[in-house]
Amino acid sequence: MANIFSLPNQLVESEIFEPLLASENILIERIVSTGQVTPEGEWYNQEKDEWVVLLQGEAKLSYADGSSLILQAGDYVFLPAHEKHRVDYTSSKPPCIWLAIHGNFQLK
Amino acid sequence: MANIFSLPNQLVESEIFEPLLASENILIERIVSTGQVTPEGEWYNQEKDEWVVLLQGEAKLSYADGSSLILQAGDYVFLPAHEKHRVDYTSSKPPCIWLAIHGNFQLK
Repeated sequence: MANIFSLPNQLVESEIFEPLLASENILIERIVSTGQVTPEGEWYNQEKDEWVVLLQGEAKLSYADGSSLILQAGDYVFLPAHEKHRVDYTSSKPPCIWLAIHGNFQLK
Repeated sequence: MANIFSLPNQLVESEIFEPLLASENILIERIVSTGQVTPEGEWYNQEKDEWVVLLQGEAKLSYADGSSLILQAGDYVFLPAHEKHRVDYTSSKPPCIWLAIHGNFQLK
């Protein structure tokens, strides 16, 4: 059975994006970060809503309004479509394990 | 910020179902189990698809064909709509923390 906390012995240099379940309606993915951040001056500006939980590690998320959040293991956030954000820090020891759910959630 | 691993000091007798994000399209919920199981002879037979990960604790899931799975922290499973299943065991020390995503995923 697949386990969300299981990591390869040797982590690659880049972030790992692994779809765990994918369809036109939804993408559930695991992301493993080991120090990578959003490139300087760039923002995520996503077409879809995202709900994301950091399951292991520590990370910093910043928003276009200048605010930011330090995420510890277990912290979760909702990122509506087109809410610009960037990742300013991800821990490498331990690696960050994110579980992200992307879709058009049609919240009212 | 909300944390998926944070539990109340005093857990109630019953299972706790907490919607973390809910719309017509999707339900992301945390479930906290402390020994509860599906009542004898009953099955979950859900209208929607479910992807679920056990984030803490240990549990046993059984299927109508007689097969079963022991879930450890981090194990995840996909339960298509109408795949009959039941929960035969949930640990109370530590409590089981599940993260479940329900929706019509329209997998092909």
